[in-house]
Amino acid sequence: MKLLRYGPPGGELPGLLHTDGTVRSLAKMVDDLAGSALSNSSLESLRQSNLDDLPVVEAPGRLGPCVTGVGKFLCVGLNYSDHAAESGMDVPAEPVLFMKATSAIVGPNDDVVIPKDSTKTDWEVELGIVIGEPASHVSEQDALNYVAGYCVVNDLSEREFQLERCGQWVKGKSCDTFAPLGPYLVTRDEIPNPQDLALWLEVDGHRYQDGSTQTMVFGVAELVSYISRFMTLHPGDIISTGTPPGVGLGQKPPVYLRPGQTMTLGIDGLGQQSQTTVAWENA
Amino acid sequence: MKLLRYGPPGGELPGLLHTDGTVRSLAKMVDDLAGSALSNSSLESLRQSNLDDLPVVEAPGRLGPCVTGVGKFLCVGLNYSDHAAESGMDVPAEPVLFMKATSAIVGPNDDVVIPKDSTKTDWEVELGIVIGEPASHVSEQDALNYVAGYCVVNDLSEREFQLERCGQWVKGKSCDTFAPLGPYLVTRDEIPNPQDLALWLEVDGHRYQDGSTQTMVFGVAELVSYISRFMTLHPGDIISTGTPPGVGLGQKPPVYLRPGQTMTLGIDGLGQQSQTTVAWENA
Repeated sequence: MKLLRYGPPGGELPGLLHTDGTVRSLAKMVDDLAGSALSNSSLESLRQSNLDDLPVVEAPGRLGPCVTGVGKFLCVGLNYSDHAAESGMDVPAEPVLFMKATSAIVGPNDDVVIPKDSTKTDWEVELGIVIGEPASHVSEQDALNYVAGYCVVNDLSEREFQLERCGQWVKGKSCDTFAPLGPYLVTRDEIPNPQDLALWLEVDGHRYQDGSTQTMVFGVAELVSYISRFMTLHPGDIISTGTPPGVGLGQKPPVYLRPGQTMTLGIDGLGQQSQTTVAWENA
Repeated sequence: MKLLRYGPPGGELPGLLHTDGTVRSLAKMVDDLAGSALSNSSLESLRQSNLDDLPVVEAPGRLGPCVTGVGKFLCVGLNYSDHAAESGMDVPAEPVLFMKATSAIVGPNDDVVIPKDSTKTDWEVELGIVIGEPASHVSEQDALNYVAGYCVVNDLSEREFQLERCGQWVKGKSCDTFAPLGPYLVTRDEIPNPQDLALWLEVDGHRYQDGSTQTMVFGVAELVSYISRFMTLHPGDIISTGTPPGVGLGQKPPVYLRPGQTMTLGIDGLGQQSQTTVAWENA
């Protein structure tokens, strides 16, 4: 299933993209796409219901982030070997984790604000994992049973804030609007092999990123298992799994975003996003 | 005012420690100590009400974390010059930020679980700032107007996970139970000068930390202003402002927590916490 949230910021309603192309309302089925609504049993009971009977939403309008109530937003750094190389860093021996503020989350097609005093705002298309069940010390074999599904994430990054302003990446990863999520939460049954998905990103029609999750250093199951040894993962938590080559920082010379540009990005089976960049003063 | 939450985990109710020593129920005044209940106007209307008339809670029992609905938990590293020295690190030119998972938050006297496979679990008494109003690009002069109040934080840290497991501190800061909060959220009117508070921590009666917020590198107002330039702070967000000297890592040789120990810690005017450490297998 392709689950989504539509409506104005803060007033989104839960919905589903039906196989007939219409958006259907899930308002009578779940309160929102958050917490226990993401559990295996909740998703299974949705799947067993007669989706053809769900009311059609005639004009869904804006899409919001495809999940809400995100407790923590974990990101994995340098998780594609060729991206590590373009960043001038070694492939890590264990997954590198950092966090993004949940206040950065926006809808998949909302404007991205270039932060005040930013000169190095950069893009990163990433496969996002949405947790569905509480996971603590789960094995790699069992790990996917704790995953509700997947979504596209643009892990926007201000490279000066991230790398040149005294340690720890969170400072350059957490600016408002720096985490477009969606368009859909695609349930895991539709993505039988998350390690064979093409993912790409274009800026103003120029394709900068064109990779595949085949080249991830640590795969989805390994990441869920690994992170669950350090902290309990809860329903609605997001793990963004790293980006393939082609970020602005890796261009020679580096290329960064300016106001008025359009990013378009997508992942096989998960749909695509498109954001316009706007100056902080005009946001 | 000293605001608190009492009751079993997940079932806490809002309350107030009255000047007569009793706990009073705030259930008819606020839904919970979260979000808009922490705003200047909400706290002012509480302050103007007749607190003597609030119902006495005869047996409040366990205290929960003094704030809930925490959107992000920011921490400041190396923010006491003498702690930076004991850690063998330079005082940073700008505040060092990292994040702690909000899933680590527990009540001020709840058990602290030594994580599975941990050998270097360490303590850190810290002054926590609780945000009350949305803050974006606020000046240092105005910054305290965005603060609801303060609380004691024990910023527990697994030093191997933090420093020896491939980059970014979040991995050693986010384990379950690693963020006891409370006992109280003390509103900012009761703490006219947050830069003159003694803070201390003892393990099994031995005083390891005995400092003062006078020796902070970056003060409360400066931190709120600084962080608000990178991301919008929202009501209920926590900023933990760093720890004074005396952590286990800084002992010669280093000293780490074992199951069955008792940490007691406190800050002038903010009350004290006490946690027993338990083995992961017994948690």
